[in-house]
Amino acid sequence: MIVEMRTGAKQQEVDDVVAKAQSVGLEVQLNQGTDKVVVALLGSNTGQIPTDIFAVLPGVESVTRIMKPYKLASREFRPRATVVDVGGVKIGGNKVIVMAGPCAVESEAQLMQAAKAVKKAGASILRGGAFKPRTSPFSFQGLQQQGLQLLSRAKEETGLPVVTEVVNPQDVELVASFADMMQIGARNMQNYALLTAVGKTRKPAVLKRGFANTITEWLLAADYLLAEGGNHAILCERGIRTFEDSIRFSLDITSIPVLKKNSHLPVIVDPSHAAGHWSLVPAVAKAAVAAGADGLIIEVHPNPKEALVDGLQSLSVSDFTRLMGELKVIAEAVGRSI
Amino acid sequence: MIVEMRTGAKQQEVDDVVAKAQSVGLEVQLNQGTDKVVVALLGSNTGQIPTDIFAVLPGVESVTRIMKPYKLASREFRPRATVVDVGGVKIGGNKVIVMAGPCAVESEAQLMQAAKAVKKAGASILRGGAFKPRTSPFSFQGLQQQGLQLLSRAKEETGLPVVTEVVNPQDVELVASFADMMQIGARNMQNYALLTAVGKTRKPAVLKRGFANTITEWLLAADYLLAEGGNHAILCERGIRTFEDSIRFSLDITSIPVLKKNSHLPVIVDPSHAAGHWSLVPAVAKAAVAAGADGLIIEVHPNPKEALVDGLQSLSVSDFTRLMGELKVIAEAVGRSI
Amino acid sequence: MIVEMRTGAKQQEVDDVVAKAQSVGLEVQLNQGTDKVVVALLGSNTGQIPTDIFAVLPGVESVTRIMKPYKLASREFRPRATVVDVGGVKIGGNKVIVMAGPCAVESEAQLMQAAKAVKKAGASILRGGAFKPRTSPFSFQGLQQQGLQLLSRAKEETGLPVVTEVVNPQDVELVASFADMMQIGARNMQNYALLTAVGKTRKPAVLKRGFANTITEWLLAADYLLAEGGNHAILCERGIRTFEDSIRFSLDITSIPVLKKNSHLPVIVDPSHAAGHWSLVPAVAKAAVAAGADGLIIEVHPNPKEALVDGLQSLSVSDFTRLMGELKVIAEAVGRSI
Amino acid sequence: MIVEMRTGAKQQEVDDVVAKAQSVGLEVQLNQGTDKVVVALLGSNTGQIPTDIFAVLPGVESVTRIMKPYKLASREFRPRATVVDVGGVKIGGNKVIVMAGPCAVESEAQLMQAAKAVKKAGASILRGGAFKPRTSPFSFQGLQQQGLQLLSRAKEETGLPVVTEVVNPQDVELVASFADMMQIGARNMQNYALLTAVGKTRKPAVLKRGFANTITEWLLAADYLLAEGGNHAILCERGIRTFEDSIRFSLDITSIPVLKKNSHLPVIVDPSHAAGHWSLVPAVAKAAVAAGADGLIIEVHPNPKEALVDGLQSLSVSDFTRLMGELKVIAEAVGRSI
Repeated sequence: MIVEMRTGAKQQEVDDVVAKAQSVGLEVQLNQGTDKVVVALLGSNTGQIPTDIFAVLPGVESVTRIMKPYKLASREFRPRATVVDVGGVKIGGNKVIVMAGPCAVESEAQLMQAAKAVKKAGASILRGGAFKPRTSPFSFQGLQQQGLQLLSRAKEETGLPVVTEVVNPQDVELVASFADMMQIGARNMQNYALLTAVGKTRKPAVLKRGFANTITEWLLAADYLLAEGGNHAILCERGIRTFEDSIRFSLDITSIPVLKKNSHLPVIVDPSHAAGHWSLVPAVAKAAVAAGADGLIIEVHPNPKEALVDGLQSLSVSDFTRLMGELKVIAEAVGRSI
Repeated sequence: MIVEMRTGAKQQEVDDVVAKAQSVGLEVQLNQGTDKVVVALLGSNTGQIPTDIFAVLPGVESVTRIMKPYKLASREFRPRATVVDVGGVKIGGNKVIVMAGPCAVESEAQLMQAAKAVKKAGASILRGGAFKPRTSPFSFQGLQQQGLQLLSRAKEETGLPVVTEVVNPQDVELVASFADMMQIGARNMQNYALLTAVGKTRKPAVLKRGFANTITEWLLAADYLLAEGGNHAILCERGIRTFEDSIRFSLDITSIPVLKKNSHLPVIVDPSHAAGHWSLVPAVAKAAVAAGADGLIIEVHPNPKEALVDGLQSLSVSDFTRLMGELKVIAEAVGRSI
Repeated sequence: MIVEMRTGAKQQEVDDVVAKAQSVGLEVQLNQGTDKVVVALLGSNTGQIPTDIFAVLPGVESVTRIMKPYKLASREFRPRATVVDVGGVKIGGNKVIVMAGPCAVESEAQLMQAAKAVKKAGASILRGGAFKPRTSPFSFQGLQQQGLQLLSRAKEETGLPVVTEVVNPQDVELVASFADMMQIGARNMQNYALLTAVGKTRKPAVLKRGFANTITEWLLAADYLLAEGGNHAILCERGIRTFEDSIRFSLDITSIPVLKKNSHLPVIVDPSHAAGHWSLVPAVAKAAVAAGADGLIIEVHPNPKEALVDGLQSLSVSDFTRLMGELKVIAEAVGRSI
Repeated sequence: MIVEMRTGAKQQEVDDVVAKAQSVGLEVQLNQGTDKVVVALLGSNTGQIPTDIFAVLPGVESVTRIMKPYKLASREFRPRATVVDVGGVKIGGNKVIVMAGPCAVESEAQLMQAAKAVKKAGASILRGGAFKPRTSPFSFQGLQQQGLQLLSRAKEETGLPVVTEVVNPQDVELVASFADMMQIGARNMQNYALLTAVGKTRKPAVLKRGFANTITEWLLAADYLLAEGGNHAILCERGIRTFEDSIRFSLDITSIPVLKKNSHLPVIVDPSHAAGHWSLVPAVAKAAVAAGADGLIIEVHPNPKEALVDGLQSLSVSDFTRLMGELKVIAEAVGRSI
């Protein structure tokens, strides 16, 4: 941490910074420049100390972090890439894992049809929402427990492990008993009560990026999951909120190499929620694999025209099957399989 | 809702849109232009129908909402301004209400000192955090139940009603038993499980704007609170996330007149979290009152240098006292008291 | 264009909207709903009529565009993809075109070394800045006319056509006499005097996206170039400004399929300025080709450590050579060559 | 400037950083922490040295600026507030200066009517656009030279000094011969050719903030104006681009105190372009004065319904007159006159 003193700061003000730093166990080195004093604070835990405790002192102009504030999710903490096992499917290895299925579980017929179709097309994991966080209280909120039972039946039928969202800490135990992997949605990325409850299960969890959260905040949220003792977090880029209005969210493609550099966790991409329109999903999915994503989570509906939720961004079975063929070639072009 | 057909769309495709609209109870009017057909869908509940169910149909180019999607929070639903009563203090009337106190309750001494000081300076409500949502799992998470008890004691001592944050649906009953008003933080604005739990208590609630949420999404979140039967929501602008990096968040000052136009709910402003630095708080607070805010929520700490959380953005007692004097004159300039 | 009247708007107010519409040559269709009147304005030139002239009328709640406001750059105007010929190199066809070279022309030795190296690695066009728009007036501003002469010499030597930036309308004639293609930088995307001057030359021009401009504004800026009679504009995505702070700009990967859908112009990507760091360039470049880009413009420097401008985002010759090999495989995976 | 070396960086890599720093005249201090080496680079001109030249070196993890990169516009360079004299009107002193008039000069009748009305209501400077930068090439581009002559006539008639926009370096001399102050629009904030041409005239200039530019970039652009020897720049906040879609731009109210802290230049606010709707202008204007703005620039049209440009955001004469009365009281509440 670097504390820049104001031009003309008094010796007493510099001394106060030094004393504060020493009181929290940091080493101090003073840099006396021609114009101002710059104080370097050193120690292995500076990332976990708030900058405010120095910024608030008289005579201080600015405080700059050098160490990253996240810890357990960082590449420095664990240099080797983490591979997460989801019901026998390995995420973070050479194979690019495709998870697919409907946005919401609507009925047994719809889910079974979707599950068999995505399996046939090559998906490795089945996705489907039972608890749906909706922008309006007057929208369909999901089949809830009944949806979980249907997912369970689809798993029996197809052998595909299942990923589904959990939105309330009180439901975590229930959802964990049905799902192979839980998903924490973008709106809940900083719902710390939920993160802690999911972390405690030590089951694999997909942590979607909040649509206005920096990569640093995202990895700090992953720290909440990992702090409970597991190592089963998967990061999912799903687009960020920008001024661009032709699409729902702007997929941050560069987050993939940035995460690979700074974290050991697997990275997957949700092209459906980012693009918001089925016609844009294939281009975004192909880009994600080319940029190094370890997996994709794609919305597929047997009949998008009749979908209760997000039909516009769902691929039909035939579009998904065609896309899987295209993705296979891209995966091979970057030295991976799918 | 306006459905624009693609240039050259087939008659069958237009008919399918018409049939879909009629199936959900909407009136239809066709507009046959020189280049394309535009279908107007009319009815009093179009705001609650997802645009996707039309956008996904073949031959459709775009679907545009005319009705606002939020309902209970809208000015159309309730034309007169709502006044919320918080332990005898009225928010949304002529008087601008100032809520002040420390970011986090740290100890009995700290809280009592703060409570007495802000009361003396003219604040009407005491704020203080017992449950603290923190970006890192390794940061101080608040005194929790003990913090609530201290707030309760401070209320007895000073007579000030108390507002405090709740972060977990499981804690709502507990927090509601201590607080006169609950606060839903920015990170939880779309935590629907929490909104519903708080709404069910029918106690006054401050709903902070998510830092990347549009005003429309914010009013939809307020609909979740109001849908449980109460009418006690207060909207709190606290800055949005933009590219500007000299401050923590960019306070969206224009949201005040926009909310006053579109909603009947009271609007307050949190200048402390937006600015992120005590030296910027007074200018933002004065601007908020001049723009028509019904209240302010300001962080004040008896000793900002020793604060465990957010010391940098906390005003000292003397700075807060001076600011209250300045705000009084601004409030009078816009025909209000403070 | 759809004009939504306020609930309870008077007949006279509706009549005034109709009269205004007829005065600018639009057809009118009234939609009388249960709650409000919605007026549809139809005609082939509604995209070029400002919405304000209706929004300002009494009784109007909102005005929504249906037609896109851009014209010459639109897919509706010209359904077939445009191919631009730059000194014999075709951009917008099956072959993905790579343009490479140093950010700034610094010296004859530097430029010749770079030019020969990028040609050897497979680039089709040489890039190099002679006029450099710099954030600070105290930074190196480019070799200017001397830089143009060096580019000309490099072209003779290698046979590669040359693209270079122009920043002042007064320099357009000069730059056009040396360059095969001119580049309009992101900061000048809405510098209409410059766009018009470049358009008048009818030479190929790369139009970089302003880092806070929507795709609609970008295509409107392309209209300025095309309005002068040529059809030689190429759109270059180079990242947009968002809240994310781990990179310089967030590359908007979805803009590629969105542009392909809405415009006939070729689309290229600049991974170097978006990423801002050489280590992130390969992932972004591969993603761009996978998503359908017609070309790339990449900064390559024979010695990045000594670069006067943007050394951090420049690839070394060996890194670029390796990347070209990887891009070749990706291009083939999407059915193209490089 | 602070250079953080990677954990495990070699001694040679540290030595290379030191050598590079010394080669550009900087002092060096090494900070040997337990985990990594941090190199502090000191000197009075570090703000003008690009961070890239260190970031590109092997073994370097990050480079952080301590000194601000702008110079002439900074408070450190000139501690006392600058007052700019525009035809006898002083901007930056105790009096809040209101500039008002139509967005575009449309005709002699329109301009004269507007000029007399805004003078009567208390405005000190007349605004009016002769050269209009428009998003579409098919929109009205302004009366150009004829518009300048009309502004000149309005000045004679009313005695109000005149401010008008210039968009092309080639027109600077012409515009300067008619205007008391030139305006550089948001889209041209980083049009360095234009900034330099305007700076060379040493006439007062309003520099509008680019709608996606940070405050740091804005002050760097001001450096371009000041680098030509004058001291006549005025900064104009006019809203920034964010995700919020209920308004045209989000006015960054906090930029006012941030600029006052970091720069000596006067700060004015344009509530009309930010809000985009006349009904929102008064709240934003009052907030700006309360937050410490030195002036306002407001669009006023004698007949907004017939305006050729931006009628929706223009105040009528009666609305403007009422607003001036309200602003007077706010100005007094913050110890100023209007």
